[in-house]
Amino acid sequence: MKKNALYAQSGGVTAVINASACGVIETARRHRDKIGKVYAGNNGIIGALTEDLLDTSKETPATIAGLRHTPGGAFGSARFKLKSLEENRVEYERLIEVFEAHNIGYFFYNGGGDSMDTAHKVSQIGERLGYPVTCIGIPKTVDNDLPVTDTCPGFGSVAKYVAVSTLEAALDVLSMAKTSTKVFVLEVMGRHAGWIAAAGGLAGQGGAEPPHAILFPEISFDQQRFLARVDSAVKKYGYCVVVVSEGARYADGRFLAEAGSKDAFGHAQLGGVAQVIAQMVKTELDLKYHYAIADYLQRSARHLASKVDVEQAYAVGKAAVELALAGHNSVMPIIVRNADRPYRWSVGTTPLSRVANREKMLPRSYITKDGFGITAACRRYLEPLIRGEDYPPYRAGLPRYVALKRVPVERRLNRPFVLK
Amino acid sequence: MKKNALYAQSGGVTAVINASACGVIETARRHRDKIGKVYAGNNGIIGALTEDLLDTSKETPATIAGLRHTPGGAFGSARFKLKSLEENRVEYERLIEVFEAHNIGYFFYNGGGDSMDTAHKVSQIGERLGYPVTCIGIPKTVDNDLPVTDTCPGFGSVAKYVAVSTLEAALDVLSMAKTSTKVFVLEVMGRHAGWIAAAGGLAGQGGAEPPHAILFPEISFDQQRFLARVDSAVKKYGYCVVVVSEGARYADGRFLAEAGSKDAFGHAQLGGVAQVIAQMVKTELDLKYHYAIADYLQRSARHLASKVDVEQAYAVGKAAVELALAGHNSVMPIIVRNADRPYRWSVGTTPLSRVANREKMLPRSYITKDGFGITAACRRYLEPLIRGEDYPPYRAGLPRYVALKRVPVERRLNRPFVLK
Repeated sequence: MKKNALYAQSGGVTAVINASACGVIETARRHRDKIGKVYAGNNGIIGALTEDLLDTSKETPATIAGLRHTPGGAFGSARFKLKSLEENRVEYERLIEVFEAHNIGYFFYNGGGDSMDTAHKVSQIGERLGYPVTCIGIPKTVDNDLPVTDTCPGFGSVAKYVAVSTLEAALDVLSMAKTSTKVFVLEVMGRHAGWIAAAGGLAGQGGAEPPHAILFPEISFDQQRFLARVDSAVKKYGYCVVVVSEGARYADGRFLAEAGSKDAFGHAQLGGVAQVIAQMVKTELDLKYHYAIADYLQRSARHLASKVDVEQAYAVGKAAVELALAGHNSVMPIIVRNADRPYRWSVGTTPLSRVANREKMLPRSYITKDGFGITAACRRYLEPLIRGEDYPPYRAGLPRYVALKRVPVERRLNRPFVLK
Repeated sequence: MKKNALYAQSGGVTAVINASACGVIETARRHRDKIGKVYAGNNGIIGALTEDLLDTSKETPATIAGLRHTPGGAFGSARFKLKSLEENRVEYERLIEVFEAHNIGYFFYNGGGDSMDTAHKVSQIGERLGYPVTCIGIPKTVDNDLPVTDTCPGFGSVAKYVAVSTLEAALDVLSMAKTSTKVFVLEVMGRHAGWIAAAGGLAGQGGAEPPHAILFPEISFDQQRFLARVDSAVKKYGYCVVVVSEGARYADGRFLAEAGSKDAFGHAQLGGVAQVIAQMVKTELDLKYHYAIADYLQRSARHLASKVDVEQAYAVGKAAVELALAGHNSVMPIIVRNADRPYRWSVGTTPLSRVANREKMLPRSYITKDGFGITAACRRYLEPLIRGEDYPPYRAGLPRYVALKRVPVERRLNRPFVLK
């Protein structure tokens, strides 16, 4: 009897994670002889554990096609990491139980490093419990920190958003600098690695062109050197644009965002690093500042997605199904870079064990010696990833993002499962 | 002898102020028999006062055409308000002196209410000094607070940016709400009027659809009512999206942004209102939050400009030149709404004296009774303004914004002018 598939989204969502879902579902639908229905976990792995599944077969082809241009996680995602097998074996056993109850033979897990680890373990435990499941990981993360793959779907679009926003805001600030704001700070994501901050560097070619300083998590923040940089840019170019990673930190490891202030009740403020930087510029240099915090806007900005990113997100979803049908297990499709200029890429494969729990940091060679900019090598790596536009359709001025029917799959276990 | 023209940008720039510049310059170039060169004030009126002029005739037609899709103020803008005639008559006299030295007979001033007042006075003083200048105002402001005109070029694009960003971020938050952020706050511009905040309301139709609360400057902030609203949205829909105007304030007039905290040195923090709101949600409701501050991103986001807005910005620039050639003086072209559905508009005219120093506030009838949403009347007004997309050309993943040569006009007065 042909088996059904389970697709689940995991961790922070992106502008293109649904494009991967689209790739999975459309490809599975083209192989109805081998794959039954594609179910989705409602809120990711939590839905799988609690037998809260959605039946994607109830969605029209037009709706599934629309996932390609819809941001967010259409089936719901979750920040929920399964414990180790030793600590909480019951979670893994429960997953297999749910899979068995719904005749699920394929598990497609769309997430970052932790999720790849989970998918790998599910495959192992299924084997041991006598219910083998084909587990394929699908890479996703705006942080671009997965190893082996050249890039992670989700990153190219946030990179494009940050590069374009830096360029646009810089034109605004430049126009007004004579009588108004001199220093503009844009805070971007990337708690552990500076990939996203580096993308801000694509807005200009360095020197007079913005951004005039990028603050990476990888480079210890030195207030005097930073202020000297800002002061110099303002004197030379009339203004200064700063891109700062939320993960920027002092040499002792403290985040700048933590270094801040107390509120009226004496509580530590959870203010952003942009504000800390801006206040420093005001206090020490007495320059007028503005700051923006892109926050979720940067990872949900499907209106400005990178075409390359959308295509890669779809491709890894499609490849996941094809790998499963070809008999692979415990693997993840990856993006392989075949050439820089012109950029050519293809989809490769890596074992999940090689991806799980390893982070790819921004290499030091991608950051200029002074620590405030990106090198030619970094540009060569980043530039292709923001190429091309892939606009969603619009109606009445707004993107026509699709909404799913979200038809639940009838429960068969009827035994509640309490999440720990 | 035919006269030259002076074009100057004033106040906060927008995604489409250069489209107005494009309209002025292209139209003047089509009337070379009547208008000589178009000069631009370097940094707006400051350039005019200091005889720091740029010669737009040195720019290629392709560059001028490219202004239509380039954000920021290409000639530089300034926050510089001329004092009243009584207080500083010398500034007005100096302007006329510069105009005379450069044979300037037309003054096109592209700005908000203050600028319209200045243009009006320049016209009067020229008359009195025996050097009559045709002064035409060109409306521009993201705040949408100019009277008489149906809307202000610049507003439609920021409205589209805020509506789309609210929609996109809401999809992100909804995906993750089960295990992560429950409350998302987007801070937008609009110190005095809630037009921009209202645009966030276009992201959904109310009820379950985001935003679930809009905080307008026009409605006194009531913490208990606001927190009850957030609590109710989270209980009913699982999440809550808030759009807050930077001008949100308490009943006693204090801005929420001022109510905040002190830094480590005891200085009042200049933190955004988003942070104040978010902290309140955390402290009182113990809900996980995130916030974004759009800041300059919203008014420079030419990549997401409203087509209607771009067309209107160009049209008022073009009309300004045509009005001048038709013998009008001390007037401003306005946008007239002929019909809502389908939306039809035309360009009309109003005397500068009717525009100067008057603000158009968001009518109370545009805000729902509970104070947290927008009414059907408000939607009817706003919707047409965000219609249509007008994408800039891209190269290598980035918009191809134009840079001007900025060729200076040779000085003839050689007498420095000290700005007060």
